[in-house]
Amino acid sequence: MENLVKELREFAKERDWEQFHSPKNLAMALVVEAAEIVEHFQWLTQEQSKSLPTDKLEEIKAEIADVMIFLTNLADKLGIDLLEAAKEKIEKNKKNYPAAKVRGKALKYTEYKR
Amino acid sequence: MENLVKELREFAKERDWEQFHSPKNLAMALVVEAAEIVEHFQWLTQEQSKSLPTDKLEEIKAEIADVMIFLTNLADKLGIDLLEAAKEKIEKNKKNYPAAKVRGKALKYTEYKR
Amino acid sequence: MENLVKELREFAKERDWEQFHSPKNLAMALVVEAAEIVEHFQWLTQEQSKSLPTDKLEEIKAEIADVMIFLTNLADKLGIDLLEAAKEKIEKNKKNYPAAKVRGKALKYTEYKR
Amino acid sequence: MENLVKELREFAKERDWEQFHSPKNLAMALVVEAAEIVEHFQWLTQEQSKSLPTDKLEEIKAEIADVMIFLTNLADKLGIDLLEAAKEKIEKNKKNYPAAKVRGKALKYTEYKR
Repeated sequence: MENLVKELREFAKERDWEQFHSPKNLAMALVVEAAEIVEHFQWLTQEQSKSLPTDKLEEIKAEIADVMIFLTNLADKLGIDLLEAAKEKIEKNKKNYPAAKVRGKALKYTEYKR
Repeated sequence: MENLVKELREFAKERDWEQFHSPKNLAMALVVEAAEIVEHFQWLTQEQSKSLPTDKLEEIKAEIADVMIFLTNLADKLGIDLLEAAKEKIEKNKKNYPAAKVRGKALKYTEYKR
Repeated sequence: MENLVKELREFAKERDWEQFHSPKNLAMALVVEAAEIVEHFQWLTQEQSKSLPTDKLEEIKAEIADVMIFLTNLADKLGIDLLEAAKEKIEKNKKNYPAAKVRGKALKYTEYKR
Repeated sequence: MENLVKELREFAKERDWEQFHSPKNLAMALVVEAAEIVEHFQWLTQEQSKSLPTDKLEEIKAEIADVMIFLTNLADKLGIDLLEAAKEKIEKNKKNYPAAKVRGKALKYTEYKR
C-alpha cells in the first residue's frame, strides 16, 4: 500500500500532473471511474453479475484499478491513510449495525431507529 | 489489506448481508459513496478543496472509507487483488502516457494520438 | 419547459448563486443527485424496484426532480435546448441501434460490430 | 415533452428492451451518463468549463441528451411527470432557501440551521 502511494506520487510528478490533482478534480475522476464499473453491470441481472465471462472480468478489473488509483491519490492529497480510515469506519459500522438487530435486512442505520 | 478483506467478509456474514452483495449491487453502492465525496467538493473552488476545515475533512475521510470498503468488497467478490490490479494498471498507464509526451497536459491517451 | 428554464434562472439570481453555477460545478451536482436516486435502488431486486411503497416513491420523485433541475441549469448555461438535444440523440440512436439487429439484446452499438 | 415520453416508449418497445428497463437498471444508466458529462469537466478549471471549444460542446450535448433520455424513461416507469416534479421541488426549495438568508452562500439547507 505504501508502495502504491509512492508510485502514484512519482507518476504524477514525472508528468507534471500535480497541477490537475486538486482534491476537487480527483473526486470527479473517482466518481467517473466508479460509474465506468457500473456501466458494465447496468443491464445484467444479479445472477449474471456473479458469473462474468473472462473478457468482461478483465475490463472490470481495469476499471476497479482506476478507482483504486484515484482513491489512493485523493486520500494521499488529504493526508488520509486509506487502510486506517477503512478500519475506523468498520468499527463505527459495527456499532451502528449490530448483527443481532440488522440480520438479513438492508437498511440505513438511521432507518432502524424509525 | 488482507486483514481488511477478511474483516469485511466476516462483517457481511454475521449480518447475513451476502445475499445483497452481488457485484451489481456493490457497484451501485460504490458509485453512491464516490458521489458523496463529490458532494463535499461541488461548490468549492479548487483552492478551497486544498485547505479544508477539520470537520469537513473528517466527514470526507468517512466517505473515502466507505468507497474503500465497497471497492474491497467488490474486488473480493470478483476474485480481484486490489493492490495487484492497481500496480498492473500503473504499468499500462506508463506506456499509454509516456512522460516526455504528456508532460503538463491532461488528455486521455486516445486523444494524444489524434 | 421554457418556464422551468426561466424559473431556475431567477431562483439562482435572487440568491446570488450564479457564481457557483459554472458548468464544472453543475456537472458535479448533477452526478451527485443521480447517485442519490441510485442509493434508493442499490439493495433492491429488479422486481422490488418496480413496485415501490408510496413513501419511497415520493422520496425518489424528489431526487428525480433534483436531477432535472441541475440538468436544466447545466444545459441552459451551455446554450443547449434539452428537448431538442434529446430528440436529435434519439434519431442517432435509431441509426446506431436498428430494431431488426438489436432486438432483445442490450449491448453498446460498438459491440454489435464485433 | 409528452412527445419525448411517447417516442422513448416506442423506441424501447420496437427493440424489446423493456425487459432491461427496470427502475433499478435505469437508475444505473442515468448515473453512468451523468458521470460521462463529469468526465469532460474533470481536469478543466471553472473558467475553462465556461468557454468550451465547439467540438467539446457537441460531445457534451450528446451526453446531456443521454441523461435526459434515461431520466425521462425512469420518470415514466415510475409514473412521475418530470416537469411537474421539478416545479414542485422548486417551490420547496424556495421555502428551504429563502433568498434573504442564503444570498451568496452555498450550503445545504440543513446547514443553515446549525
